This record gives sequence, C-alpha cells and structure tokens, in this order.
Amino acid sequence: MNFTQKQSEYVQIIEDTLNKSIKIDNPYYISLKDAMQYSLMAGGKRLRPVLALAVAEMLGKDLNEVLAFACSIEMIHTYSLIHDDLPAMDNDDYRRGKLTNHKVYGEAMAILAGDALLNLAYENMIEDAINSSNSRKLEAMRLIAKYAGALGMIGGQVIDLSSEGKSIDEDRLKTMHRLKTGALIKAPVEAAAVICGVTDNELKLLSNFATNLGLAFQIKDDILDVEGDIENMGKKPGSDALCEKTTYVTMFGIEQSKKLLETVTNEGITYLEQFGSKAEFLRDMAKSLVERTG
Amino acid sequence: MNFTQKQSEYVQIIEDTLNKSIKIDNPYYISLKDAMQYSLMAGGKRLRPVLALAVAEMLGKDLNEVLAFACSIEMIHTYSLIHDDLPAMDNDDYRRGKLTNHKVYGEAMAILAGDALLNLAYENMIEDAINSSNSRKLEAMRLIAKYAGALGMIGGQVIDLSSEGKSIDEDRLKTMHRLKTGALIKAPVEAAAVICGVTDNELKLLSNFATNLGLAFQIKDDILDVEGDIENMGKKPGSDALCEKTTYVTMFGIEQSKKLLETVTNEGITYLEQFGSKAEFLRDMAKSLVERTG
Repeated sequence: MNFTQKQSEYVQIIEDTLNKSIKIDNPYYISLKDAMQYSLMAGGKRLRPVLALAVAEMLGKDLNEVLAFACSIEMIHTYSLIHDDLPAMDNDDYRRGKLTNHKVYGEAMAILAGDALLNLAYENMIEDAINSSNSRKLEAMRLIAKYAGALGMIGGQVIDLSSEGKSIDEDRLKTMHRLKTGALIKAPVEAAAVICGVTDNELKLLSNFATNLGLAFQIKDDILDVEGDIENMGKKPGSDALCEKTTYVTMFGIEQSKKLLETVTNEGITYLEQFGSKAEFLRDMAKSLVERTG
Repeated sequence: MNFTQKQSEYVQIIEDTLNKSIKIDNPYYISLKDAMQYSLMAGGKRLRPVLALAVAEMLGKDLNEVLAFACSIEMIHTYSLIHDDLPAMDNDDYRRGKLTNHKVYGEAMAILAGDALLNLAYENMIEDAINSSNSRKLEAMRLIAKYAGALGMIGGQVIDLSSEGKSIDEDRLKTMHRLKTGALIKAPVEAAAVICGVTDNELKLLSNFATNLGLAFQIKDDILDVEGDIENMGKKPGSDALCEKTTYVTMFGIEQSKKLLETVTNEGITYLEQFGSKAEFLRDMAKSLVERTG
C-alpha cells in the first residue's frame, strides 16, 4: 500500500470515529451539536491523529489502542482553530474553504462550541482510560494536557497575539512556533508512543522527529502564505503580511526558508533510522509536508 | 468552630492552593499568567471547592485527598465566568465588584485565559491522579468532565443563549438551570464522594442534596437580581430584566419563588440525615445560601 492509500485509510478511521463522538440529543440545545460537528467534520489533513495511528502501527500495536486519544487531539486542534478565527483573535471568515464557525453560528456559539470540544477531548480520553487496562494512558493524557495548555499551544497563541505588528527576534519567533504549532504535533507522537509502551530511547527519538516535523510544518506554512493560492489553501494567502507578522520568510527570506525546510525535514527523518522499514509511512509523511500546496 | 469560621478555613486552604497553581514563567507570555490569575484570585465564595472539602471532612477523610480536584472545579467555574462575560456573550463589565477579564486584558486574552484555565483544570486532576494510589480519581474526573461539558454546564449556557428575549416554558427553564448552574454544584459533591469511596446509597443521597442546593442557589440568584443591591452583589442587579430573561421570579412571582427556595432547601437538607451531626457544615451551608445577599 502506498503512502496516499495508507493516509486515506487512517483518515477514514479517524473521521468515522470523530463523526460519532458528539453525543448531544437534548432538543433544547441541539444547535451546539451542529456547531461542534461543523468544525470537527470540516475536513483537513487530520495530520495530528494520523501521526498517532502511524506511530502505533509502526510499533506493531492495535490502532484502537490509540484511536480515542488521536481523536481527542484533533478535537483540541479544532477548538483552537474555532477560537483563533474569532473576530477578537485573527478575525478570519474562511477556514479550509468553508465559512468559519462564528460566521455560521455566531460568536457566542463559536466560543461555546470551542469550549465544548476542548472539554469533550478530555472526557473521551478519561472514558478510554477507564475502559482500558493500559495504565500508561494517564501518563499520555498528562503529556497532551501539557502540550495543549498554557505551557504549550495556548502559550504560543499568546506570544502570537502580543507579537502582531511588532518586529520580533529569532528566539521569540522560534518559541512561538515551538509552542503554537509544535506542541500539538509532538502531542500525538509522544502520547501514542507512551501508550504503546516504548523505551525511553525510542520516546526520545520519536519526540525529536516530531519536533522537526512541527518546525518544518510551520516554515512551510510561512512559505505558503507568500507563494500559496486560495484554491489549494482554502483560505486567502497573504494574511501574515496583512497582520504584519514576523515569519520565517520575513526573517530569513524565501530561499533561505526553503533551504531550512529541507534541512529540518531531513534531520527529522534521521531520527527514524532505528525503526527501519516500519517507519516508511512517517518518513513519507515528513516528505509530503514539504511538497504540500495547502 | 462555627460555620463562618470553618468556611473561612476552607476558603483559605483553597485560595492558597489556587494561588500557587499557575506555573508560567516564560517572559514571552507572562501576561497570560496575569490574566488567568486575575480572575482565578478575584475572590468569590468558593462555593464549589468548599463543598468538596466539606464532603471529604464529613466522610472522615484527609482534605488533601480532594483538594486538587476541588481547585480544578473552581478553575472550570472561573473559565466559564470569563467566557460568559465576553461581549459576544453576556457583555458584562463588572464581576464581583471588579472589572471583568476582557475589560482589563482585552477580548483575545480573555478567551485564551479562559481556555488555559479549563485546560489547567484537567492538567491538575491528571497530575493528582498520577501521584495518587487512589484509582477512584479517574472516575471522579469522568464525573467532572461530564458536568462541565456539552451534556452539563456548556449545554446550559447554550440554552441560556438561545432563550434570551424569548418566553420559555418551565421545563426549558429547569433544564437550563439544572445544567448551567446545577451541574457544576453537583460536580464537587459527587467527585469528592467518589474519591472518598462512599457507598452507592451515600452517593445517591449526596447527589440529591447537591441537586437541591444547585436549584436553591439559582432561585436565590433570580430573587437577588430583583431585590439585591450593587454593593453586596458586586454587579448591577436587574440584568435579567434587561436581557428579558425568563427566571423563577418572572415565571412564579417573587413570593412564590421565596417559598420554593425554602422548600427546595429543606428538602435538600433531609438527604443529609444519614450523615448525622457530621453533616452540620453542609446543612449550615444550605441555609446560608438562602440568607445570602450577594
């Protein structure tokens, strides 16, 4: 099975599970289900949960062992996008080619739908941990909470917020991306690895791989914001420039950024050596992120 | 020790713990810590965590056994207030006599500070469960997640949102309050009881007590919105009328609401009989909520 087929297979499993995960049937607030479902099922690459499934399969484990946690991370990612798009934040009207949550359901509902998705992410993980005999799930939950919270993604969002319209230095830019994008890419890789019971050395290697993958993802995002087009991206490029954001491209120039993207990706792939041919999907995924057009 | 002294003792323990719980020291986003701390330490009755401590003490357990969970529920309550006060939601400028979070830190930061508090609540509980040999903590976490989420408090917020300016029937009003206020009052009582290892019958009794307490709390809130004054309440009364909200007072009248408050409180207290004199604090607390002026 080639990379694209395997990826579609993973995405299908994830979408099927996500699609059944919002269990609201009270007629008084069924609208909340609609709003949550709208953003959760709005497509996208499902990069984060796919990473979790791929790590589990590489390690020879049943995908179901990590599926709930994988989907919870996607819920956390989705809630963060809903809140990020709000008028008080990035004020975006489109996401993945569709109207953003608040443009369809209103701001108040978008805030609550985001809150509810974050809460559901934990509810799902807790439920899964209770129904499982795998005591490492609590530790995996701890990792995800750290990466999602104030010391992780939310910290990065605050740096981003306070950096708009300012010229920021390299250290601040890197810290921002390590937290804002990087943390939630490390989360599924490390959480899946922990659930599958890897050695400390294997965890370190996979964590390093994920760090590089996250960095590459962000550099590519910055490049696409200059070179991408609306059809492939599902949103208007140029938003960084519009918000006067410092990016890899404004800091290092487009050519240097492309070189950096290559270097970071290749270095990331070296951390997979120990896993041999079983790491093929993860290697291909790293390469595919370099080539992506949206 | 009388009720007020005991209550102050509990509040002191809770505030000391809350005050140390936000561990952000990265200078790039220390502002997030300020925003989270501002609302978390803005006072208030600490009703929810006090309930958890009181249940643990009544059951003869060490308060530390439930302290982390008690504080997590207060974080969840605080995040919900920050988001509720936003312009897109209730658009309140004051809370407990202080400017609301977004009035001080801006809307974007208020959204993120709320998100971060919700996430921290789970992080804290997970950490506590990992460091404890008490396997019932996972079950307590499950209860809290249910009461905080789409099937609990957030569901109630959505009903509230969609009911403004509309005349709603009794069933809808009751469902709204059961979820919006009731759920997060049941959470500390049930979670503490589960952590302390109560019998099914004891859990049922305490759950019933908490249901009545939550309902009484809401009826009193509705009465105060008509009869309260700004000094004691820390916010302007009359906001329900301003938003054309259906309340117990608009539905049953002020006298009938007061009678209902008495009945519901007294019925709640009967569920404590089995716990004898050890339930004195909880009984006094139920009565104090009837008498409160803010």
